[in-house]
Amino acid sequence: MFRHAQLESVKAWVVDPAQRSLPLHVRIQRAVRQLILDGALDASKPLPASRALATSLGVSRDTVEAAYGQLHAEGFIERRVGSGSFVAEGARRLGGRGTTARTSTTQQPLRLSQRGTAMYRNGGVREFLAPRAFVPGVPETRNFPLATWERLQRQVLKEWGSTALLHSPPQGMAPLRKAIADYVNLERGAHASPERVLVVTSSQQALTLCASVLLDPGEHIFIEDPAYHGARKAFDAAGLDCAPIPVDVDGMRVDLLRDARQRARAVFLTPSHQFPSGATLALERRLQIIEWARQHQAWIIEDDYDSEFHYAGRPMACVQGLDAHQRTIYIGTFTKSLFPGLRIGFMVLPTELVAPMTIARTLLDGHSAPIPQLTLARFMEGGHFGAHVRAMRAIYCERRDVLAKLVRRHLKDFVEPRVPDGGMQMPCVFIRDIPEQQAIDAARRARIDLLGLSGLHASRESASAGFLMGFAAHTPGELEAAVKKLAQVLRVVAR
Amino acid sequence: MFRHAQLESVKAWVVDPAQRSLPLHVRIQRAVRQLILDGALDASKPLPASRALATSLGVSRDTVEAAYGQLHAEGFIERRVGSGSFVAEGARRLGGRGTTARTSTTQQPLRLSQRGTAMYRNGGVREFLAPRAFVPGVPETRNFPLATWERLQRQVLKEWGSTALLHSPPQGMAPLRKAIADYVNLERGAHASPERVLVVTSSQQALTLCASVLLDPGEHIFIEDPAYHGARKAFDAAGLDCAPIPVDVDGMRVDLLRDARQRARAVFLTPSHQFPSGATLALERRLQIIEWARQHQAWIIEDDYDSEFHYAGRPMACVQGLDAHQRTIYIGTFTKSLFPGLRIGFMVLPTELVAPMTIARTLLDGHSAPIPQLTLARFMEGGHFGAHVRAMRAIYCERRDVLAKLVRRHLKDFVEPRVPDGGMQMPCVFIRDIPEQQAIDAARRARIDLLGLSGLHASRESASAGFLMGFAAHTPGELEAAVKKLAQVLRVVAR
Repeated sequence: MFRHAQLESVKAWVVDPAQRSLPLHVRIQRAVRQLILDGALDASKPLPASRALATSLGVSRDTVEAAYGQLHAEGFIERRVGSGSFVAEGARRLGGRGTTARTSTTQQPLRLSQRGTAMYRNGGVREFLAPRAFVPGVPETRNFPLATWERLQRQVLKEWGSTALLHSPPQGMAPLRKAIADYVNLERGAHASPERVLVVTSSQQALTLCASVLLDPGEHIFIEDPAYHGARKAFDAAGLDCAPIPVDVDGMRVDLLRDARQRARAVFLTPSHQFPSGATLALERRLQIIEWARQHQAWIIEDDYDSEFHYAGRPMACVQGLDAHQRTIYIGTFTKSLFPGLRIGFMVLPTELVAPMTIARTLLDGHSAPIPQLTLARFMEGGHFGAHVRAMRAIYCERRDVLAKLVRRHLKDFVEPRVPDGGMQMPCVFIRDIPEQQAIDAARRARIDLLGLSGLHASRESASAGFLMGFAAHTPGELEAAVKKLAQVLRVVAR
Repeated sequence: MFRHAQLESVKAWVVDPAQRSLPLHVRIQRAVRQLILDGALDASKPLPASRALATSLGVSRDTVEAAYGQLHAEGFIERRVGSGSFVAEGARRLGGRGTTARTSTTQQPLRLSQRGTAMYRNGGVREFLAPRAFVPGVPETRNFPLATWERLQRQVLKEWGSTALLHSPPQGMAPLRKAIADYVNLERGAHASPERVLVVTSSQQALTLCASVLLDPGEHIFIEDPAYHGARKAFDAAGLDCAPIPVDVDGMRVDLLRDARQRARAVFLTPSHQFPSGATLALERRLQIIEWARQHQAWIIEDDYDSEFHYAGRPMACVQGLDAHQRTIYIGTFTKSLFPGLRIGFMVLPTELVAPMTIARTLLDGHSAPIPQLTLARFMEGGHFGAHVRAMRAIYCERRDVLAKLVRRHLKDFVEPRVPDGGMQMPCVFIRDIPEQQAIDAARRARIDLLGLSGLHASRESASAGFLMGFAAHTPGELEAAVKKLAQVLRVVAR
């Protein structure tokens, strides 16, 4: 028999709105289970007969029987013929240990691993979710040819059938690796073959793979200063020691690598459009860094993000294609050229790294979804990718010019725009003393997202305060409205 | 002017079948670039005039002009009015450094990081790609309701439009987190809320997250012996020290945790159907392990893989739902209940771990694709998931029985099947001295995939040799044909 309080407790579960999605018999089963876990039931006395409990609760006897049946199957109660149901031996011994049950929280402070704490503190790679001005790195998706994409996906499913539901080879589906190799060879001057392409979910995953497969904790990696925060955080999380190398108008000061005090096993850079400055790495420096890597048997990690969008002639060929010594790891992504939700990026690897990287990737998360891979392969083969990139290049070029004009008109008292030759964002440097974080916070309250420049620099001294403005995802009209609003925000902050 | 050999070299690029996918002007540009990188051109003399080179190569002058234009844009050549094109200063200084260019390979042996080498050696998580008998862990996908799935996806794209192309919140899309919480509460007896669900790409990713966020290299984690290889390898890759705890018919010998010499920060286990033995963790042990975790402030990592498929009554509720102290991390996946190519798994986390795990996930690979998440949410809300699981449960139960019968009939001289109460695979233990690896290799040559049992055990001494047979992905007819073929293989090996 239940005591009154116990019956009330079961009734409370039954009518608890938080449990509403659960069927009645499950709610009753959980309530009785909780009483047992709490040690609240007298083990020497039988539980209420199902008919009696059903009457008390105002439910059918079958419902209570179903609850008791499950409690029995799980070992919480024993059913003795003729004398009813009792708390089971095994469950009984633990009486009282769960009295704080439903509301208990851990008393002690949270203890993560050292690396877990470090990752938590560095804050992860913040993605701006809402398509608000001026989120950097987010493409325009409103004119993506979704109908074409869906048609190609239907073709894939029709032809591949349920095979497309199975595992992808961890290196990626063959048709996509072929399409990617053809693309980077033609458009980026790479030396790639399908055998050297590894499909990943994102450039972030590629960076994580490089960090752990190529370097051990405490080893040095050269990065640009200022640097892409996603890369720096991935390297930090892997326990690497990032050694910043200054950037000028021709990109990373590669000459400083030779003089650096540390010996580094790798260098990370963004040669097409340096993040965040937008500088293109000069040819001579490209050749120098290849020579440096060859001499030191070091790795060049080339992040060729948003290289599709170059507005002053053709973009320069990638470092990977110039490197005759297979020291370069090329990283590309479709997040910016197509859409962020696709989750497909890729690496072009030195031959000898293909197997180690592929195996490491299986340990991280197995493989990439086959259906989007096959759809993307068709999208590329059919010329839709090239056409989309060309169309977006013209649109983004116009938006870049519009934004530069708007900044010069409305924000001229606060910042100077550094108009880049390519990419999807424009750095704007403060021309008077404005507290950067305060400006960013005030902008966010006005529903405008800015990425501060100071945080991207290795040392605050050398930092040029200001912010990065993404312009790709917004029409000229949207850009104008947002710039005007930002002018109001800055006027208040700069007072 | 080019010397004869140089002209021949350019011609060779132009007709090289490997370059066929590149336009003519790109091939010419690459060929000249290579000559410059090789230091093969006399810098004091001009390059051939475009008209002359066009004639020599039998192409139009425009084609050569396009090649020269790109070489100029990239800084490889200078064009002097009236005197023609010359190798540029910056490119010239590096003459000779690339002579081994197109065929060069790294002379020194490959040097990976220590952790990279360890991952490479442990071989990664081998996925069996072809849907061959008897691949473990692969579901039947031929009767997946693909038309329904496609219809729901069309609905999603229609309603969400281009918003579905943007980033997912790193924790996962809200509708899916809600559907998952409802599901695990109802079907698995969990205590979940959408706020505590983290969507990931796979249980493998969840294991990697646990290993790095909760433990540091060198720290101990208790695992089952024998253990799921994917988990052990993820922990090894993270530098953890795995301490194996024996398994008996009631699952992990939880009583041994208290006596273990090492102090461990976590325990990993598969309570529903222990991998590979198939044992279900007894209720008493579930309560004991929760008490152990509470006392030691340790974490329980509960991998509830394939718990949907239990054939003897309802499956037992998960450990997470019994744990009133929020020490349990619940891991689930749709790889087995739906299809492997979906790439959606999830964790139900203690409240205080939600932020650290979500942030660590952004560092690994950002977020999961929104479109499959939204489609899956609808698939679950609409009852299709429940219906599919029920249908597959009946099918798999039949296949398990068929396989047991077939093994007893055709393989009775070699193995004894250990028929599990649930899951998708059946361990078969050798009853005579058969070399396990030889049997597996011979089976593979006969196009039959087996997973050896010995490799899953911590020590070879205690190991029961034999193999695991996946039965879910094959019809009774297919199972029969494969078992008969396997009988022939074993007859030869056991001689």
